[in-house]
Amino acid sequence: MNTVELIRKKRNKEELSESEIRFLVTSYIKDKIPDYQFSALLMAIFFNGMSTEETAHLTKEMLYSGKVIDLKSIQGVKIDKHSTGGVGDKTSLILAPIVAAAGVKVPMISGRGLGHTGGTLDKLESIPGFRTDLNLSRYKSVVNKCGTVLIGQTKDIAPADKLIYALRDVTATVESIPLITSSIMSKKLAEGIDGLVLDIKTGSGAFMREEKDARKLATALINTARAFDKKVIGFITDMNQPLGNYIGNWLEVYESIKVLLGAGESAADLVEVTLQLSGAMIYLGGKASSIEEGVEVSREMISSGKAFDKFLEIVKLQGGDVSLIKNPEKYPKARIVETVRAEKSGYFNAIDNYALGMISLELGAGRMTKEDVIDPKAGIIFYPKLGDKIKEGDIIAEFHTGRKNKIEDMKNKLYNIISIDGKKKAKPKLIKEILI
Amino acid sequence: MNTVELIRKKRNKEELSESEIRFLVTSYIKDKIPDYQFSALLMAIFFNGMSTEETAHLTKEMLYSGKVIDLKSIQGVKIDKHSTGGVGDKTSLILAPIVAAAGVKVPMISGRGLGHTGGTLDKLESIPGFRTDLNLSRYKSVVNKCGTVLIGQTKDIAPADKLIYALRDVTATVESIPLITSSIMSKKLAEGIDGLVLDIKTGSGAFMREEKDARKLATALINTARAFDKKVIGFITDMNQPLGNYIGNWLEVYESIKVLLGAGESAADLVEVTLQLSGAMIYLGGKASSIEEGVEVSREMISSGKAFDKFLEIVKLQGGDVSLIKNPEKYPKARIVETVRAEKSGYFNAIDNYALGMISLELGAGRMTKEDVIDPKAGIIFYPKLGDKIKEGDIIAEFHTGRKNKIEDMKNKLYNIISIDGKKKAKPKLIKEILI
Repeated sequence: MNTVELIRKKRNKEELSESEIRFLVTSYIKDKIPDYQFSALLMAIFFNGMSTEETAHLTKEMLYSGKVIDLKSIQGVKIDKHSTGGVGDKTSLILAPIVAAAGVKVPMISGRGLGHTGGTLDKLESIPGFRTDLNLSRYKSVVNKCGTVLIGQTKDIAPADKLIYALRDVTATVESIPLITSSIMSKKLAEGIDGLVLDIKTGSGAFMREEKDARKLATALINTARAFDKKVIGFITDMNQPLGNYIGNWLEVYESIKVLLGAGESAADLVEVTLQLSGAMIYLGGKASSIEEGVEVSREMISSGKAFDKFLEIVKLQGGDVSLIKNPEKYPKARIVETVRAEKSGYFNAIDNYALGMISLELGAGRMTKEDVIDPKAGIIFYPKLGDKIKEGDIIAEFHTGRKNKIEDMKNKLYNIISIDGKKKAKPKLIKEILI
Repeated sequence: MNTVELIRKKRNKEELSESEIRFLVTSYIKDKIPDYQFSALLMAIFFNGMSTEETAHLTKEMLYSGKVIDLKSIQGVKIDKHSTGGVGDKTSLILAPIVAAAGVKVPMISGRGLGHTGGTLDKLESIPGFRTDLNLSRYKSVVNKCGTVLIGQTKDIAPADKLIYALRDVTATVESIPLITSSIMSKKLAEGIDGLVLDIKTGSGAFMREEKDARKLATALINTARAFDKKVIGFITDMNQPLGNYIGNWLEVYESIKVLLGAGESAADLVEVTLQLSGAMIYLGGKASSIEEGVEVSREMISSGKAFDKFLEIVKLQGGDVSLIKNPEKYPKARIVETVRAEKSGYFNAIDNYALGMISLELGAGRMTKEDVIDPKAGIIFYPKLGDKIKEGDIIAEFHTGRKNKIEDMKNKLYNIISIDGKKKAKPKLIKEILI
């Protein structure tokens, strides 16, 4: 096959066949197609998109560029969840033990945070001793023993995705629905799952700011999952404000523990999104006859203490310090805890949630480059929810940081990204759509 | 500046500034931007185009990547012609001596043929001894002495174009109006000209098959020429059949000699297009007050013998064998001259002119790759013009070739690409538009 002709074909909006996509991906991995041709192809895909079939073929080639984990020897239905990420999104930490406690297997391969969003691995690693770098045989044995496991991507999984993602990153071809879809799905399908629940976030703190783009991505992901005969449910959820109140690695583990313990004061939005997702996972796993029933089962797992016990079991099996999960107040505090108070009274009507994530990052909770070191204690507790009435002088946030020199700047930044007005605006809808 | 951000900017249909385009081109030439980023940029340009300003900036950077010839020391107005190329297009050979004879300087840097179209350099080099590889000081002295010069591109001229063109060629980004425009204009502007006449061909034998695309390219070329304060006139002319009757290198020199001698049987279409172009050049050069008057001056240059004398002078100054121009019948014939006769009677209504160019190439007149060697004697004489009535058995073509094994195939091919019908169709308009 002729690479230039295949680039031209995609450029001219024609559909690439399965064998053409196979040729392109396998040749690129073997270094038989140079980067400059592959990047031109990626840009043509950016503009012309890919059909459902093309996206599935691309996903397949990326998936089979590496190892596909075989979990057939493990009993039960295996269901994972994928979120496109956001600010304060700690649902994985809460729903994995809930769903596993309900008898559905949850094998999870997660990522790290980069930019304004956090990553499940970084959050888990804030627990002293917690190991996310288990090898595949240990991965299987942990999921077999306790019903769930939370690890990072190994180099055996979808190596084509790593190569292609690195090229997309430097050629402005990241924001393409079929490329995002194949990247996500090739990694998820490698986990050996039977089904997948998708949480596609939209709003100022999400990768897909516009709801219509979130819907497009959700549809592409669902179509691809179905092309591989996987059960799938997609949620489109709001990310115009942080999910829950805690942002930052240990702070999010702490809030997750509170939710798992059924603490009354837990943020309602966090609980609602998490239980919808866990309910859908339990339903797909065959342990409930509907999402609603799955939500009820989830509540039982919390109220009975089974979900929290499951969390202790995972932490222990993955080497984490269980005593800190039992007594989270003993976790070392950030060197500086700075209170931020409202400068005026009114209704809290808007926040640039992306910018809030960036403030948390600057306080030490995230990384700008892959080499940056995270401060597990750093972050923000952000109290008000959109639509809340606020009085001047009310505490609206707490900064947790080791970086004294950042505090003034970040306070000013925070004041700049929120709006408190005289008239109450409509709150964003939390669960915007369920695609089933 | 950040290369990824600039690619993203173009990808998002924003306009790049002069300094951004300078950064991109100069960094690419210095190998500071890798091919894979530049090819992604080229594909983004393919999809989103460039404004008149961006195209001018790109042209400027490509132009100043190399030497710009200074012809200020040479008296008179310097006017060149550029054609997008076609089958049997030998107008340069005829108009250069006509216009120079009329007192306008014609410094021409031409290209070679590749694919179905011929190249002026290959045609000239069919004249034994003719040198097209003059250096720039000899280039100046020849144009100063006889008013015109016809050479090939030197490596000093627009080296950025060579690099970028090579990348476009392997990344399916050739067919982009702003990229074609900057490639053409950076080389033409380097010649040291004051004005330019453009011949944009359209039809089955042209690079721009559709008239609307030809018009877009013409407009972009004209706008760019004007951005550099050059006088410019654009013609959109028909290429649905060969221009004139002779196709192939020496065959086209031969037909050019006939036109320069004012031979009565010269093809009317070739004469009309050539004299329109030369008329426009003479007008731009200030030696006529309109294109029409320029055409009249051109006719005088032919009838007085001055144009032919000028051609002899150029050939002599560039080292060619003048005796063969004076006695073209003495030129060696191709080993095989095969007559092709009409298989049926009717009106000659259509020809795939691209395919006709490819037949000529297969007979030895052109090259598929840059390394192929051309047979200067090879080609086709194709007699009928669209709309002509033909009788079965009439000679429609003569193949001139050294490749005996090709003849049968090429005859069949020729029969397949022409249509002779009972009903006469409308002839294509020869000069479709003059953009002034």
